[in-house]
Amino acid sequence: MTEPDDDLIPSVFARDCASRGVLTDVTGRWGTLALAALHEGSFRFNALRRKVDGVSEKMLAQTLQSLERDGLVRREVQATIPPRVEYSLTDLGQRVATQLVNLIELLEGEINTMRAAQEAYDDLR
Amino acid sequence: MTEPDDDLIPSVFARDCASRGVLTDVTGRWGTLALAALHEGSFRFNALRRKVDGVSEKMLAQTLQSLERDGLVRREVQATIPPRVEYSLTDLGQRVATQLVNLIELLEGEINTMRAAQEAYDDLR
Repeated sequence: MTEPDDDLIPSVFARDCASRGVLTDVTGRWGTLALAALHEGSFRFNALRRKVDGVSEKMLAQTLQSLERDGLVRREVQATIPPRVEYSLTDLGQRVATQLVNLIELLEGEINTMRAAQEAYDDLR
Repeated sequence: MTEPDDDLIPSVFARDCASRGVLTDVTGRWGTLALAALHEGSFRFNALRRKVDGVSEKMLAQTLQSLERDGLVRREVQATIPPRVEYSLTDLGQRVATQLVNLIELLEGEINTMRAAQEAYDDLR
């Protein structure tokens, strides 16, 4: 069935566009870090939680669920005893995570410039 | 003066790293949209607020202040009556915004794939 808004061009600037919801998941406080971590390889839940320093169990579970629902993260349950649950990126998740890693590397590489800007700003106030 | 942590490699995965703070500003709910809007050109406050559909005056002001402090956004007051305040990107802000626009274009282009994933996920629950 055709959706009523199939002809509209998606835009994150429109508050009701589905693309804004997805952007919010991807750039959310923990979404970005979870995707960037999974860009390095698959993780079990607790290992991912250690990697994303500071995230609570509840917030990480919610974040992974949203990203799985968006089709970016794959959750695989292996039939071991106890069951082993692994999280990895889908192909689209990999493409999204690559963009985020590019952004993160830019910010990490320019952090001294940005700290200097912060200090200069604070000195004037 | 040398900072005590000048030798550490910045990492957004460490909760106290300055790069995580900057990442939070850039990928915050309104930070991403403000930077992506300013990537198109300079804006006065109210025009920017109309462009970033749904943002409150208070949240946009806070967002722009954080991004100015990080050295990504320039705020220029022109000596007209009444004074005209324009926001634009610094060179570094332009580089950061380019990464965000790449991410946004990927998500907007794949929104139908992602909506289908969301529907499939919801159908199973």
